[in-house]
Amino acid sequence: MEQLKKRILKEGKIRGTNEILKVDSFLNHQMDVAFLDELGAAFKARFADCQVDRILTIEASGIAIACSAAKAFGNPPVVFAKKNKTKNIAGDVYISQVESFTQGKRPYNIFVSKDFLHPGEKVLIIDDFLANGSALHALIEIVHQAGSEVAGAGVVVEKAFQPGGSLLRNEGVRVEALARIQSMSEETGVVFCD
Amino acid sequence: MEQLKKRILKEGKIRGTNEILKVDSFLNHQMDVAFLDELGAAFKARFADCQVDRILTIEASGIAIACSAAKAFGNPPVVFAKKNKTKNIAGDVYISQVESFTQGKRPYNIFVSKDFLHPGEKVLIIDDFLANGSALHALIEIVHQAGSEVAGAGVVVEKAFQPGGSLLRNEGVRVEALARIQSMSEETGVVFCD
Repeated sequence: MEQLKKRILKEGKIRGTNEILKVDSFLNHQMDVAFLDELGAAFKARFADCQVDRILTIEASGIAIACSAAKAFGNPPVVFAKKNKTKNIAGDVYISQVESFTQGKRPYNIFVSKDFLHPGEKVLIIDDFLANGSALHALIEIVHQAGSEVAGAGVVVEKAFQPGGSLLRNEGVRVEALARIQSMSEETGVVFCD
Repeated sequence: MEQLKKRILKEGKIRGTNEILKVDSFLNHQMDVAFLDELGAAFKARFADCQVDRILTIEASGIAIACSAAKAFGNPPVVFAKKNKTKNIAGDVYISQVESFTQGKRPYNIFVSKDFLHPGEKVLIIDDFLANGSALHALIEIVHQAGSEVAGAGVVVEKAFQPGGSLLRNEGVRVEALARIQSMSEETGVVFCD
């Protein structure tokens, strides 16, 4: 998506080489909702042939993007997986573990109430970033626990130099990334795959 | 807001007396985005006379509501305070502490990058619930640290039997709640203030 690439080039902040890309001026800390709606429309264009009964994401950065996507898909319910099991979500939940690749950070569980995923439904998974794919894998696991089907996984930015996207595609998951980054460094900036 | 009250009466799940109200079928776990847009429009109606340069909320439950509100206010930037200082938010941040009234839970810090709040701006704070007001107080503290002004605080549900709303109003904060709950119990259900 050209507008997204432009925005990443203009506003993205890189740390290290193939490490951190901050796009928190419009995507995941400060949010430009009108632009998120454009991303939502781009997901609809990519998954135009898919039945989408429900959108699943993970807190916190995925939520706004998933809500914008929902509008483009005719407002199916959006569900976000929680990272903490609060007393408000006590009761029957699907649980899955997210591996963490951040140094010193432990794996953590995510939770979705059994009330909000249903057998036979087609679920579109939405998130902001795809790197090692651990969050998407955990969400897919939860969709399968519920007896739902994964319609696909839509991410805003894929760090294509990390293995998550390839792993998921090899497993037969339809992954659509609105921008795919081949490499990035403070010296060279961001280089997109296409 | 009548539609909201109806929905709380129909879908809300109460635990204990004046304790937990779950509205996670449409507000803060599963989300009905079309309905959230109606809530956003209701906030605009309540704050129609206010200048709103920016909307501030807190992860995770506030995000979708704040994004829907943004649309009603002509798409000012939305910023969400983070509960964990990740490496993506390293650098200059405003910090404030949220007291926790949940048994056994410790106070926690919230963070907003200094890049995303600016002196002189009018900031509307949005959240899902107002009970003891600790999250709103922490957000207000951050707005003041930035030299911004609080345009007001809009919450979807106020538990009016808890002191947060009164405390904030006594401090001169304009608080608008789309539904105010006088009392609730498993026996009597939800009783609204008006």
